[in-house]
Amino acid sequence: MFVFCRCAPPQSKSFSIKCGPNVHYKVTPPADRNAAPYPLTPNSVLTVTMDAVSETANDSKVPTVQYIQSPLCLKKSKHRKNAFGRKFYGIGSWKWGPNGHGAVLLVNCDSETTYKKTLDSEVDEINKVSDLQDMSKMILRTNGPAELPEGYKLTMHISQTTSENVRVFRPRTNLFLKDYIMVVGTDTLTEEVPYLGSKTELAFFVEGLRFPDKDFDGLVTINLSLLEPCGKGFPETPIFTDTVVFHVSPWIMTPNTLKPVEVYVCSTNDNYTFLKSIKNLVDKCGYKLKICHEYMNRGDRWIQDELEFGYIDSPHHQFPVVLDSPRDGDLQDFPYESILGPDFGYVTRHALNEEVSSLDSFGNLEVSPPVTVNGKSYPLGRIIIGVAATRGRNMTQVVQDFLWAQKVQEPIALYSDWLVVGHVDEFMTFVPAPDRKKFRLLLASPDAGYKVFKSLQNNGHGKAEMFPGLPEAISVNEILSDKKLQAENRYVQNCIDWNRDVLKKELGLDDEDIIDLPILFKVLEEKTGSRAVAYYPDMVNMIVLGNKLGVPKPFGPKVNGRCALETEVCSLLEPLGLKCTFIDDFAPYHKLLGEVHCGSNVLREPSPFKWWNLEL
Amino acid sequence: MFVFCRCAPPQSKSFSIKCGPNVHYKVTPPADRNAAPYPLTPNSVLTVTMDAVSETANDSKVPTVQYIQSPLCLKKSKHRKNAFGRKFYGIGSWKWGPNGHGAVLLVNCDSETTYKKTLDSEVDEINKVSDLQDMSKMILRTNGPAELPEGYKLTMHISQTTSENVRVFRPRTNLFLKDYIMVVGTDTLTEEVPYLGSKTELAFFVEGLRFPDKDFDGLVTINLSLLEPCGKGFPETPIFTDTVVFHVSPWIMTPNTLKPVEVYVCSTNDNYTFLKSIKNLVDKCGYKLKICHEYMNRGDRWIQDELEFGYIDSPHHQFPVVLDSPRDGDLQDFPYESILGPDFGYVTRHALNEEVSSLDSFGNLEVSPPVTVNGKSYPLGRIIIGVAATRGRNMTQVVQDFLWAQKVQEPIALYSDWLVVGHVDEFMTFVPAPDRKKFRLLLASPDAGYKVFKSLQNNGHGKAEMFPGLPEAISVNEILSDKKLQAENRYVQNCIDWNRDVLKKELGLDDEDIIDLPILFKVLEEKTGSRAVAYYPDMVNMIVLGNKLGVPKPFGPKVNGRCALETEVCSLLEPLGLKCTFIDDFAPYHKLLGEVHCGSNVLREPSPFKWWNLEL
Repeated sequence: MFVFCRCAPPQSKSFSIKCGPNVHYKVTPPADRNAAPYPLTPNSVLTVTMDAVSETANDSKVPTVQYIQSPLCLKKSKHRKNAFGRKFYGIGSWKWGPNGHGAVLLVNCDSETTYKKTLDSEVDEINKVSDLQDMSKMILRTNGPAELPEGYKLTMHISQTTSENVRVFRPRTNLFLKDYIMVVGTDTLTEEVPYLGSKTELAFFVEGLRFPDKDFDGLVTINLSLLEPCGKGFPETPIFTDTVVFHVSPWIMTPNTLKPVEVYVCSTNDNYTFLKSIKNLVDKCGYKLKICHEYMNRGDRWIQDELEFGYIDSPHHQFPVVLDSPRDGDLQDFPYESILGPDFGYVTRHALNEEVSSLDSFGNLEVSPPVTVNGKSYPLGRIIIGVAATRGRNMTQVVQDFLWAQKVQEPIALYSDWLVVGHVDEFMTFVPAPDRKKFRLLLASPDAGYKVFKSLQNNGHGKAEMFPGLPEAISVNEILSDKKLQAENRYVQNCIDWNRDVLKKELGLDDEDIIDLPILFKVLEEKTGSRAVAYYPDMVNMIVLGNKLGVPKPFGPKVNGRCALETEVCSLLEPLGLKCTFIDDFAPYHKLLGEVHCGSNVLREPSPFKWWNLEL
Repeated sequence: MFVFCRCAPPQSKSFSIKCGPNVHYKVTPPADRNAAPYPLTPNSVLTVTMDAVSETANDSKVPTVQYIQSPLCLKKSKHRKNAFGRKFYGIGSWKWGPNGHGAVLLVNCDSETTYKKTLDSEVDEINKVSDLQDMSKMILRTNGPAELPEGYKLTMHISQTTSENVRVFRPRTNLFLKDYIMVVGTDTLTEEVPYLGSKTELAFFVEGLRFPDKDFDGLVTINLSLLEPCGKGFPETPIFTDTVVFHVSPWIMTPNTLKPVEVYVCSTNDNYTFLKSIKNLVDKCGYKLKICHEYMNRGDRWIQDELEFGYIDSPHHQFPVVLDSPRDGDLQDFPYESILGPDFGYVTRHALNEEVSSLDSFGNLEVSPPVTVNGKSYPLGRIIIGVAATRGRNMTQVVQDFLWAQKVQEPIALYSDWLVVGHVDEFMTFVPAPDRKKFRLLLASPDAGYKVFKSLQNNGHGKAEMFPGLPEAISVNEILSDKKLQAENRYVQNCIDWNRDVLKKELGLDDEDIIDLPILFKVLEEKTGSRAVAYYPDMVNMIVLGNKLGVPKPFGPKVNGRCALETEVCSLLEPLGLKCTFIDDFAPYHKLLGEVHCGSNVLREPSPFKWWNLEL
């Protein structure tokens, strides 16, 4: 005869009974036999009778009682719930949204060491305690007897697929030092874990290994089972299994409307003045300037193109992650060698059996500010890339697959193959604004360009010179009478108009959300067809640092000593509280078919919006 | 001067104007210049003035007017909307659910020919007009001038990835015959399509090539652009693009609660009596029986294991599709050679660098009836497979990936590796019921088995013989005194209990939804560990044909001339309106470790629920 309450774990509320065929039992107070589990009351009594005496200890006739309060539970720490309004501890599934639930994991893609670097995720041991910060804590709470009965054991297990995406570590305390050993992960799908006694917590550390991609939805499942011995000759059987599901943080891009942290620019043997202008602007804004020196850039100044800054985010930790382009110009070592480090992650994609083209440069990869489109909200904005319209150059499939798989900034494909260089940043950018959607889309506009030149001519400035003082100098009248240039710009305007339509539709923009900057293009005949480049410095290819804009100096015709193009652009942007600084990039950038934006890069603060709160 | 209304396409409601820099225009009645597009009224007049006369026809100074009513639209036929309460025509996106939208596509995985078969999807031409039935019609509606202006053209285009998943055909009418040519598809990403004049419709036929899988979410995007010539030396530019998004139908399994169409069974040199019993049962039910003859099955009788029947569904067409297991026993040619045909599709997955195990047989692949779990509804049920608990044999990853990727019957993984054969159909099935959730889950239960034998003993039938008249005959008393058998069955009950917990949780079942059938197991010692098989014919491994069940004859002890096990099972199932026919499968199936279900297969009617109405 057992009095239950005495031997039951505290907080147990019910019980069920299992016994062999020769055993009979009676429960008091009487309970409906079909209503098991039975409620556990302070005076619950179980009376057991047997048809025959036991022959051996623990033989079939001894009832085993399973307390219904689950003996194990595998949960993420609870304390995070309040801070983020979400249950991060596991209930065996994962759900998006503010009412969603489920734990969050980072890809451990930074490097705790700065010397002889490797990605932490490529090493299956923990050499520095600081590395634990990049992992998610998973707590095993046990609430049972001081020791498990003989032969019982706890086992953690994952699937083959999951083992490519995650590793789990646990501390191992010796007499002298505390270290961490891998429990499950690459090549180890199942492993016993210690049972530390009645009411304890055992902390595990879960390390993400891969970003979401075409073949990985970002979800990772970890199981823990209590195994029961079934006597000699039988395998153990699981009698209780708990499961926790993590979602790996996607890689998230930062739009121009987020606060800058650091500005990156290359130093070359011909860009001293440009560098000084950028330094002045960045100093004035109060941000940090990082210069990539010539020994590293080897003359490759297109730091916008070699890499894109983003970040990964979890409730306990976040850090920036650089996406390294398969472009691989002479700057190719810079992201890994100079940016990867402690709490600065790195990820790249290599083209497979695909030609890498100029469209793989990340001047062709931008992101919009937050938008709402037909009632659907994109609080982290939407990624924007450029591709061919119907046939032509394209961004490599591996990079496109990666971008689409992140899901939280659903990409938009624009048409950029009409440009020689082929980057979306040659005809568009976003600037912050105090009103409407809190930003404006700036588009390069040959029509707006011709309007400025026409108006100069109409106001008697037809003889004013474009490119004043430069060998390229040419009068407003000459420009306006150039039929070939007109045809070229009509063509360019057509291309931009198509993109304008797509952007309006995909970002939910009105015409009032768009500002047309006066920029003319010219068309070059190339082997693979005619494609466009900016005729004078392409002002839309600017650097955006809060409300301060570093705009390529257009060298337009002067009216009353002031460049008419600068005047026009200032008159369009200053009402929004934006300050334009015109930067001379003519020789070291414009002539090489790039401008200020192509030659710089900005690391920005992460969005305050948490990706797991998206309704997907 | 133009009077708009006269030249505008009927139903046009607004217009916009584009013109070169030397052209000025005025609109009456006056409209806000910034509010383009302008409303088109019956008396709209556009006055155009130029700074210079045109030098050539169609030169830059001629305004082009784009009517805002889109000149092209790529839509799925509208008539389907009413029948299915969903917009199947394209708005460039796809959304699940009864309030969702977007077109639906079938994988053309059947074969129009029965002689020298190939899957239709493997041939990039249409040889039989009947094949068009398996494709989705896509209508191009044009509403414009009788002819496109010179140099303008229509182009259909898809991405590289999409070209692996879809082909588009269009009719080509000659003087003598009508045939169909591929427009876009494998190796052809972009192609001009004819413009047939003012208000016409051009039908395309869209053919799905691949089922959703780990690397393919089932969505397919097709674009159509109107290209504008931009003069000599310039590429054409898209001026209008319309997009339609299709979702490929997933492969859908049919639970036991759906109406049977045909029963499949193998004929072997030793199963004549069994075959006759099955034929009697099927005849009585009024279904068709298909016999797989020995020249085809080569002695392999496990027709449940070699294939699984499912179907694909679209608003215009649906047909069954057989999933061929990578098991590949001697029956391996049967699905392709004998089942694939007109309106009977075929799909398979081959293991890559993975060992195929007994768990890859489709006795280990079942599907539940419709369930609702914690408020989440699964109107097509949930797929059920068996895997190892922590380590051991598994279903191949390619098949698991395929099943999970179909999404509409989210799979549940049970633990089946404790069985020698390792199939979930050895311990569970579903039968229809008139009440509660409209079905019951039947589970094999050693506890229930011992209860029957104990009660026989208690009622004075201890000497009654199990397997009466067979060489294996053994008395109830002997069975009950076999300690080893008891230990083995406690082990088995543990294994089944773990699965019972998972099924209750994942299918939202109460104990009242489950019926325990009295079945004992025994454990065999194998090289790779001890595993279980049914001790007497495993009654849960039955064939379910409406309310008629073909149950393995258990050969239990006789009481008053009737098998006590049959009596018990009938008393459990008959109250639900189910009729049990006990079929002798002892020698040709049970002794070879399978039963009635393993040796049969049932093609069932598709669910009336439409998969695109799921809320995913």
